[in-house]
Amino acid sequence: MKIGIVGGTGDIGEGMTMRLSPLFDVVVGSREQEKAEATCTMARDTLKSRGQECSLTGVTNQDAVDKGDIVILAIPFKHVVPTLSGLHGFEDKIVISPVNPMEKQDHFVFVPPPEGSAALMIQKLLPKEARLCCAFNTIAANRWKAIDEELAYSVPVCGDDDDTKHQVMELVNKISELQAFNAGPLSVSTMIEPLTPLVLNIARYNKMHDVGIQFR
Amino acid sequence: MKIGIVGGTGDIGEGMTMRLSPLFDVVVGSREQEKAEATCTMARDTLKSRGQECSLTGVTNQDAVDKGDIVILAIPFKHVVPTLSGLHGFEDKIVISPVNPMEKQDHFVFVPPPEGSAALMIQKLLPKEARLCCAFNTIAANRWKAIDEELAYSVPVCGDDDDTKHQVMELVNKISELQAFNAGPLSVSTMIEPLTPLVLNIARYNKMHDVGIQFR
Repeated sequence: MKIGIVGGTGDIGEGMTMRLSPLFDVVVGSREQEKAEATCTMARDTLKSRGQECSLTGVTNQDAVDKGDIVILAIPFKHVVPTLSGLHGFEDKIVISPVNPMEKQDHFVFVPPPEGSAALMIQKLLPKEARLCCAFNTIAANRWKAIDEELAYSVPVCGDDDDTKHQVMELVNKISELQAFNAGPLSVSTMIEPLTPLVLNIARYNKMHDVGIQFR
Repeated sequence: MKIGIVGGTGDIGEGMTMRLSPLFDVVVGSREQEKAEATCTMARDTLKSRGQECSLTGVTNQDAVDKGDIVILAIPFKHVVPTLSGLHGFEDKIVISPVNPMEKQDHFVFVPPPEGSAALMIQKLLPKEARLCCAFNTIAANRWKAIDEELAYSVPVCGDDDDTKHQVMELVNKISELQAFNAGPLSVSTMIEPLTPLVLNIARYNKMHDVGIQFR
């Protein structure tokens, strides 16, 4: 199974690349292929120094969509519209949105688009044959990158197609100690995406680092 | 310190009464004083059978406001307006809202009032001298009532007055194994209240009981 990461050279994309490439064939996308290749070289060297093999290719964002069976949109909310408007070929792809619409004011504030969530906005931007799920929203970039530490967090996953959601949950459960939870249809993304500004605020006000969530 | 529970005979109020009355002086309010007294008798007997002492008085909701140093609004969202419109004397009281505006459709949906959250609506209904915080939102009634089990959950607390918030966090940290986290000003209640429909849905879709949250 090939995983394409759109925005694979960003903060979250880099960490995902290092966590996913020892487990799956990963196609790292970027606006500029050279940047994607540089991220792959960095990730390959980092993993090699730890004795880990990986499967990694640096490509354009469009190639990441074309070659991925699962496509992860590892982009900030403000880049969603410009990025997706330049890409095509999402039909029948499994697409994962970890995107959180938020702004840093005095603290982090959840600022959803008129659709109610980033995922519901992305659904309108993608062809209706795309199989969209929300996942990984609450895993901070620093946690993805700290590859010597396990990711012992709960991951709420939502989406409208049960088969797709099942495949995404399987993917989540293969990564470190992440545990996927079915949170319902895509519309519950309105309750999942506010978790991220919430935990960022909790980290700040309680002097903690990279707070995550566990359901139990 | 006296704690007044408005709506103390409801599902959550009953469990709170049993958890709090061995630790604090608890004044249990209800629309009908007889109901409050019946809840107190039940709670006193339950605790006594486990060898626990408690301090409990059954009163009207108005008495619970008047006698409580801290007043907990243990009422469903739909009862907030009718209940608060019949009560007065909240000036300088610490008021805790565990209220979540949600509806059960096929699954639970977060349905906030125009203010953005139940807590922000309650702020408008109370006199401006009331010292309002959000807390206990994600602790399910069944968990409060299962007094033979510890409550090992995280509790996000938000409010605009730091001293009040500090006192509420101290209260939270005294109950079972609850751990309070400062989540920021009262406006972040828009990110705390959706947690409850989210965990109710996760419980349902993953066949779990009374899912709670831990931040770590």
